[in-house]
Parts: sequence; C-alpha cells; structure tokens
Amino acid sequence: MHTAAVVGTGLIGTSIALALTGRGVRTHLIDRDPDSVRIAVARGAGTAEPPSEPVDIAVIAVPPSHTSRTLADHQKAELARVYTDVASVKALPHAECLALGCDTTTLVGGHPMAGRERSGPLAARADLFQDHHWVLTPTPETSEFALNRALELVSLCGAVPVLLEPADHDRAVALVSHLPHLMATLTAARLLEGDEHAVRLAGRGMRDVTRVASGDAGLWTDILAANAAALGPLLAALSVDLATAADALARLATDDPEPQGDALAELTGILRRGVDGRARIVPPYGGTAERPATVLSVAVGDRNRPLERLLGDLDEARLDLEGMVLPDAGEAPAPDDSVGLLVAPDVARPLTEALRDRGWAVR
Amino acid sequence: MHTAAVVGTGLIGTSIALALTGRGVRTHLIDRDPDSVRIAVARGAGTAEPPSEPVDIAVIAVPPSHTSRTLADHQKAELARVYTDVASVKALPHAECLALGCDTTTLVGGHPMAGRERSGPLAARADLFQDHHWVLTPTPETSEFALNRALELVSLCGAVPVLLEPADHDRAVALVSHLPHLMATLTAARLLEGDEHAVRLAGRGMRDVTRVASGDAGLWTDILAANAAALGPLLAALSVDLATAADALARLATDDPEPQGDALAELTGILRRGVDGRARIVPPYGGTAERPATVLSVAVGDRNRPLERLLGDLDEARLDLEGMVLPDAGEAPAPDDSVGLLVAPDVARPLTEALRDRGWAVR
Repeated sequence: MHTAAVVGTGLIGTSIALALTGRGVRTHLIDRDPDSVRIAVARGAGTAEPPSEPVDIAVIAVPPSHTSRTLADHQKAELARVYTDVASVKALPHAECLALGCDTTTLVGGHPMAGRERSGPLAARADLFQDHHWVLTPTPETSEFALNRALELVSLCGAVPVLLEPADHDRAVALVSHLPHLMATLTAARLLEGDEHAVRLAGRGMRDVTRVASGDAGLWTDILAANAAALGPLLAALSVDLATAADALARLATDDPEPQGDALAELTGILRRGVDGRARIVPPYGGTAERPATVLSVAVGDRNRPLERLLGDLDEARLDLEGMVLPDAGEAPAPDDSVGLLVAPDVARPLTEALRDRGWAVR
Repeated sequence: MHTAAVVGTGLIGTSIALALTGRGVRTHLIDRDPDSVRIAVARGAGTAEPPSEPVDIAVIAVPPSHTSRTLADHQKAELARVYTDVASVKALPHAECLALGCDTTTLVGGHPMAGRERSGPLAARADLFQDHHWVLTPTPETSEFALNRALELVSLCGAVPVLLEPADHDRAVALVSHLPHLMATLTAARLLEGDEHAVRLAGRGMRDVTRVASGDAGLWTDILAANAAALGPLLAALSVDLATAADALARLATDDPEPQGDALAELTGILRRGVDGRARIVPPYGGTAERPATVLSVAVGDRNRPLERLLGDLDEARLDLEGMVLPDAGEAPAPDDSVGLLVAPDVARPLTEALRDRGWAVR
C-alpha cells in the first residue's frame, strides 16, 4: 500500500490517517469541514491535496447514516481501488450500498473497535487501534484483492483483524457495545432528578457505569437506529430481568415476611448471573475450570520466618493474591507448617521468584 | 482516640484498622473467622487480644443484615464508649438497633464510600478511604461526644465526613451506588447467552459498564434488599425510559418510514438526558455555565511559527484541548492571525506556561 484516502477527518479517520502516514503511506484527507482538514493536516495526518490517480484504499470514516451515500459518490468518482468504512453496524450500510448500485467487489465493510469519549481530529492518536480488534465483513462478492488490501490496512494500524458475517457482527456489537451504551445512558439519566447531596456522593461505581453515556447523542441515535433489529431481543430479555428485580424489591420493601425468602433468592439469582456474565469477559482467578488459581506452598514453620514476615514480603512484591490458606490455628506453629497462596496463573511465576529472592521456600 | 475495636476483619474493617494502627491507635480485631483475624494481624492491622477496658470507638464492619445484632451484642458487653458501623444502608439498621433496645446516644451510623471488587483482609489498604466521602448519620439522640469521636475516626482514615439524615443517605446511595450496581448486573447477565465471537469483541464500553457486577452476590442481595424502598422509584422511572427506547427501536427496525422521525427524536432525547445526567458528575469543559471553557489566544501569524508547529508543541505538552478555533481558511495567513484554544479551566495555566516556554505569545 502506497497511497490512501480518508474521507471524514474525525477521531477515527484522523487516527487511521496518522497511523498510515506514520508507516509511510501517502494519505489524502477529505472532509466537508475545511477546518477539520487543516487540523488533521497540521497534526501530521496527511495532505489536503486531492490524489492525481486512484489511491490504493479509501476509508469512509463518516457516521453510519452517511456511509453508503459517501462511499457510492467516491466510488463513482474513482477515488480508490478498494473501499472500506468504519461504521459501527455492517448489514444496513452494505444493503444501502447495493441499493445505490455500488460495485461490491471492491467493498470491504470494516469496524475498528476502538474509541475515546473525546471526538474530532484533535483527539486522534496514531496508536488508537494498537492491539484492538478490527472487524472486517467481506461478502461473497468481495474480491480477494480487496480483502487483502483491507487486511493490510488493519495491520498497518496495529490492530487484530476479525472476519465476520455482517449480521453476526451486528448482533455481536449489539451485545457488547450498543446495549451497554444504552444502559449507561438510562442510568446516567436518573442523575438529573438527584439531589445535590446525592450527586456529590457519586463514586467509582456510578462513574464506571455511566462513562460511555457521554458519547455524542446524534451519532449514537444513528448507531442504535441502524442496529435496532439486533438490539430488540437483548432489550426484551433485560426488561424481563429488570421487572423481576423490581418486583422482588417491591416485596422486600413491605413488612410482610411471607414472600421475602423467595424475593431474596430471586435477587441473588439475578446478581449471580451478573457475576457469571462478567466472568466471561474478565475471568475470576479463583476456582473456575477454565482458569484455575495456582497454589503456591510457602514454608512458614521456621520461627525466624513467621507469617507476618511473609505478608510483609507479599505487600512489597505488589502482586495480588486471590486467597490464602493457613495452617490450623490454635496450635503451636510446627516446623513443617506451610501457607497456601492462591494466585492467578500469570502471577504464579513472578511471585515465586519474588518470594525466593527473599529467602522463602516455595513449591 | 487511643484505642479502637474493629468487628469484622473484611476489606473495610481491616482497611480501617490498618489506617488507625498506622496513626498510633491500639486497634483490637474481632471476627468469627480466626484465620481472617490472623491475616489482619499479620498485615499489621492490630491485635487479636481482647481489650481490657472499653475502647474509645468500635467499628462494626459486618454485612448490613448482621450489623444491628452484632452492634447490640457488643454494646451489651460494653466493648466501647462509642459505636459506629459501615453498612451501605442506614435507616433499617438503625431501626433494628432501636428495636433491640440499644443505647442510641452512643451510636453514630456510618458509611465510608470506598471499596474494591476484591474482598477480605488480604485486599485491605490503609489508604482505601483517602479523600473519599464518609457519610455519618447521627440522629437527635446521638450525643455530641459520640459524633465527635466518629468525626475523629473519619479524619484518621483520611476521609471527608458528610452528615446526612439516614433516609436521605439511603435515597442517595440508591441513586449513585445501588442502581448502577443493578444495571451493571443486568447488562453483564446478557453475556451468558452471547456467542464466543461476540464476547471476544467486548471492549472498554462493556468492561466499564459491567465492572461493578463482579461484587459478591450474597452481600449485594443484602444491600439491595435493605434499600428496597429507595430503589423502587428509580427502577420504575428507568423502566419507563427503557420501554420508550425499546419501542422506538422496534419501530426503527421495521421498514415503515412513517413513524421513524418520531422514533429517532425519542431516542435522541433519551441519549441527551444521559449526556446531561453524566455531566452532573463529570462536567464537560466546553460551554456550560458552571464550568466554562477557557479560551487561550495564540498568535500564529509569524511565518516561522505556523499552525503545524503549534500542534506539535501541543502534542508534546500532553494536555487535552477541548477545541480549537482557526482563523478564516482560504486566505493567506496574516501577521496578526491567532488561534483560539478551548481548554478546561484547570488546564489553562499549565498550558499557557508550556506554550510560553516554547516561545508562543499567549493571551
């Protein structure tokens, strides 16, 4: 790849352009807003000069509702040999491109899964996509040449390509991106009615849950609307859970003890499913079949090396323990007493080395 | 304060004990689980020896459903002169204490608003509460002596005291802690039905929204049940918004263009309320009355100091810009051209200094 064009010098487009320019690709920047182009150029993302011949790849980096029209226009003007986009949904833009009569052999739908709450060319970064997933949704019509060009784009941006059917992509992002955005929004909206003293107490929990709620409302209307079909079943299932929780809590808010055991069990069931769901993306380290905790056995029977000293050394090592199994309490420490340390698999080796460095016998 | 007792050597209790011991308070540790006490003692949180006389303050650091009973038992045994707790709800435990015949003049309800997803004495930290809010809920019966002792406790832990009526506290934490926990849980639960390729694509958005969902399900059943009444109205309001969003998306998922303008407007309205709600806890820096962005005017007319060089220096300064206002494009740069930089109020001074250090004229 020697030349590229980026249409839309927002956060995503400018970041792609920064990455490509940094890898020696002559990148042409196009945007309806000349100030946006000036800033992108000034940041080193490429040139505002139009290309003199079709570029190797054009990235259409505009909101989903404009993607197909923008792509069709530039394809008619022969901007590039290959075209890709960055829209957060894939099925609808592709259907629109078909309807607009695009040549689909040179189209590769794309979705780099990275972002920041800040938008615009000023917020762009060349490393925005580093080690992130970048989904590509080629169709049976997509040429091998076009797909390989798109894979090269992903690689130059430092991202990990993932090939999916457009509909599978849309269902996936409905679950892992669009649903959480809507939940963050609905939670944050409740803050509007909160008293000052209540809002003041907002801590890490509320901040984490509502962080993505600050995204651009116009853009997110676009995204959610374009993926409305995939979101439907998810919202229906969540609504059922929400109603169950609300009903259980309504019963618990009364003084009637009769239905409360059931209500508590329903609540616990919902909370457990949340824990288990979370574990699919952030596995717990203690006691699951997929990622069992490792047990390090540390000898603490030597009266010069008591438990207190071990805990001090563990604090210094600054590695997280999942748990500790102590020898039986109430008996005098025996020479062969040992303590079991439960650690995550990736902590086991560095912690073993850290403890041996401090003179501990570790098995 | 010279002596203290902590009943319950979990994350919160052990962290309090670590803070107090670090400030020279002789802290006695009590827990039904002797291994938990051993670990807390070994971490330097205090002593397992029972006090020989009533301590200055006892902190009941057990789950909400056990708080009142534990407090009543220790008050009967004259463990301390003043008692406080750490339960996440305040009205119900206090009502239970009254019913159990406690001496309420020496009780000060408390709620340190800090935590970690990890639990137990191993996860405790002396600085867990540093600069966090710590709510105290004295009642008309609380003695001045007891309140002052509790304020001293908060201060020794480095936290910021906030005095609230118990019911106001409960409504506040329902909004800023319990509601987001439930929303995180309901969102995370959807991951259980997700395909592997979908779950693989989970990024920062899903992780942020579901982070708190990994909290202990038993403890959170306790907490939510104890605050069921305050949660009711919040869940009802959120359910209405959720139904509105789901209905709008259902209309958008059809091909019928007729109701779609309204559906889009409803979605945008909900998303905007999420943006505005979020802004109550994390104010945006550009253009609100409360925190207006500051405009720095930087001269860029000198042909040796073009916009490109300014942007390079801005990158090096590593401070965030909210926006940039350029001189009119399409005209040759004039000697008195300047660029307006929109920055957050707390960025203005350091950025001005950084730019002046690099030779820029900044007003």
